[in-house]
Amino acid sequence: MAEDHRAGGADTTAMSAEEDSQVVNPWEVSAKDGGKIDYDKLIEKFGCQRLDQPLVNRVERLTSRPAHVFLRRGVFFAHRDFNEILDVYERGEKFYLYTGRGPSSEALHLGHLVPFMFTKYLQDVFKVPLVIQLTDDEKCMWKNLSVEESRRLARENAKDIIACGFDISRTFIFSDFDYVGGAFYQNMVRVAKCVTFNKVVGIFGFTHEDHIGKISFPPIQAVPSFPSSFPHLFAGRDNLRCLIPCAIDQDPYFRMTRDVAPRIGYQKPALIESSFFPALQGETGKMSASDPNSAIYVTDSPKVIKNKVNRYAFSGGQDSIENHRKYGANLEVDIPVKYLGFFLEDDDELEHIKKEYGAGRLLTGEVKKRLIEVLSEIVERHQKARALVTDEMVDAFMAVRPLPHMFS
Amino acid sequence: MAEDHRAGGADTTAMSAEEDSQVVNPWEVSAKDGGKIDYDKLIEKFGCQRLDQPLVNRVERLTSRPAHVFLRRGVFFAHRDFNEILDVYERGEKFYLYTGRGPSSEALHLGHLVPFMFTKYLQDVFKVPLVIQLTDDEKCMWKNLSVEESRRLARENAKDIIACGFDISRTFIFSDFDYVGGAFYQNMVRVAKCVTFNKVVGIFGFTHEDHIGKISFPPIQAVPSFPSSFPHLFAGRDNLRCLIPCAIDQDPYFRMTRDVAPRIGYQKPALIESSFFPALQGETGKMSASDPNSAIYVTDSPKVIKNKVNRYAFSGGQDSIENHRKYGANLEVDIPVKYLGFFLEDDDELEHIKKEYGAGRLLTGEVKKRLIEVLSEIVERHQKARALVTDEMVDAFMAVRPLPHMFS
Repeated sequence: MAEDHRAGGADTTAMSAEEDSQVVNPWEVSAKDGGKIDYDKLIEKFGCQRLDQPLVNRVERLTSRPAHVFLRRGVFFAHRDFNEILDVYERGEKFYLYTGRGPSSEALHLGHLVPFMFTKYLQDVFKVPLVIQLTDDEKCMWKNLSVEESRRLARENAKDIIACGFDISRTFIFSDFDYVGGAFYQNMVRVAKCVTFNKVVGIFGFTHEDHIGKISFPPIQAVPSFPSSFPHLFAGRDNLRCLIPCAIDQDPYFRMTRDVAPRIGYQKPALIESSFFPALQGETGKMSASDPNSAIYVTDSPKVIKNKVNRYAFSGGQDSIENHRKYGANLEVDIPVKYLGFFLEDDDELEHIKKEYGAGRLLTGEVKKRLIEVLSEIVERHQKARALVTDEMVDAFMAVRPLPHMFS
Repeated sequence: MAEDHRAGGADTTAMSAEEDSQVVNPWEVSAKDGGKIDYDKLIEKFGCQRLDQPLVNRVERLTSRPAHVFLRRGVFFAHRDFNEILDVYERGEKFYLYTGRGPSSEALHLGHLVPFMFTKYLQDVFKVPLVIQLTDDEKCMWKNLSVEESRRLARENAKDIIACGFDISRTFIFSDFDYVGGAFYQNMVRVAKCVTFNKVVGIFGFTHEDHIGKISFPPIQAVPSFPSSFPHLFAGRDNLRCLIPCAIDQDPYFRMTRDVAPRIGYQKPALIESSFFPALQGETGKMSASDPNSAIYVTDSPKVIKNKVNRYAFSGGQDSIENHRKYGANLEVDIPVKYLGFFLEDDDELEHIKKEYGAGRLLTGEVKKRLIEVLSEIVERHQKARALVTDEMVDAFMAVRPLPHMFS
């Protein structure tokens, strides 16, 4: 997984700037001419399906719960075979979830939490097991971190992930440096045999100057899609379906995986894919780990959050109060409203804010004030939860063990 | 290790026919115009050193034993830093041995035994630990065997290797499919980060159409050169030197390894390299696994050995007894004499045979008769030893365990 890294292969990708100006791959997300990502175009280009309202309705019907905010509001907007996963569930059968993270930084930002918050929801409503891959090997290779530092970051990030509230009786967290081997490695070889260098150049934009560690990596992110990679969890369940919640920049890995799966006798994983969480400075891509002021970190204090939102959150409000009252805010570009769309649970309140703000009756400062409250509460809750995560708990989540109650 | 496979990258290697007609890499060995391998040229091209008489004398002095037949007769004819290993030993310090095999066939032939016989000698005289890598993953990828079949062959081959008489208190045999992971995998990543695609194209002749499993493989054969890949054996001994006995076609892997080692803070492995064991049909390369009549297998019966030697062993004798008595045998191309050079321990008898045969006083049939005796005895001894190797012994040799007495 490569939530926020951008190094490597950037301007050499097959979906390069020459072709269509919009670049989305695991290492680079950039819109045409510095504008917004065109998600419709992305769906078309990647060949995935739009996650439409009937599918959201079906989730609500099957789970007897309101759909998650991220589903209701189109944060998770695309999928591959998610309907088949719902078919499986409707038949009373089971599936498992797979998500991950590339541990490249000490602290996560709110964008990093999005897939985990959503995955927790899926685990809760479907009552299914979950594997979480920490690609410390990838970060060691792409970010040129030492093995030791990558492993340390993986454990630190695991604490943040655990703090999201995953159920230990259904959740296996693993780092590649610890877990690669055995059945998992055997599947890596099965996948690697089916993918030529030309193919990874086409999918990931690798070049001749890239080191062979990078070229070797795609099978490693592919194989958690196959239940046989986890014999301690899924022995004898080789046909168990897998659902992968992730940001859409990870789609190339799983296009490759789905292409290979039938050739090695495995089920294709299904995907449910999110748009990118925008930077405070505006919705032109993902947040940059290199600019701490572009994101709210889960380690930020209320004071820092307040300062960042007030100072950096791009406003769609007008340049004077007079104009604002007259023309209203441009909600299309307004970051406080976007962020509230992710994190303000109350649909009515959100609608009210959008209406009043768009009409100029609410000012940017007032919307930002509400956003600061919402974010501070989420971050404070996360910090409290994370403070309770001990090293023993990390060991417990990461122990290679059966999960006897994972389907019950 | 790739003792006898030839698939893949053949005519695309950087040392291609266009360049100098002689191709030697882990997957292809072929001499110029179907002639003999020019080992002097190979030494020059690869940049290794000739294993000369003073070095052989030094081995005899340090070990207080006559040098192994393979040393005395130049079968192991090249090296890299073997003198440094002897320096280490002379200072009373230790080193370890690393060799391996790509398990591509059920039964080994005599050529396969050469590095193991020599490695056993090195283990005996230097009293050092030994790691033996079975590259079942490589064979799965190059020979398109299934994972299961490759693993099965690895265990079968392990029995033949154990039958060579290795000391279980100093020997760890591992298969990649079982052992890759943890510290070993971490070293794979460290190595892979230092090697670009361009580099492996130059060293191994990979192409764009090769699958990424092949491109990923070189670090896997590289890292047993580093003691930290075996924490259960060498924890805390990161500077322990490694000596690799192997056939010279494996040199490309270890040129790469030696290039990378200092960049990741590790010692370069030393090598001691053999020429190729010739096919019965003549010394134009290595034996072909696809032609069972090109080699004596360790499973051959005395009758089969007799038939193969009499029927297929290329003779340097003259076409009539009259001419033979007159001109004598051409020892340069005579396979029975070459084979006796590998396996007839008695130097005096070998010299006698060469003298009499070369002078035409001994006939091919008589030399072949002696060779049949020698080979039948070796093969019979091997078969008896192998029959005693149980699955439990394989498990014991392959158990990931400390070897507390490996240096004593």
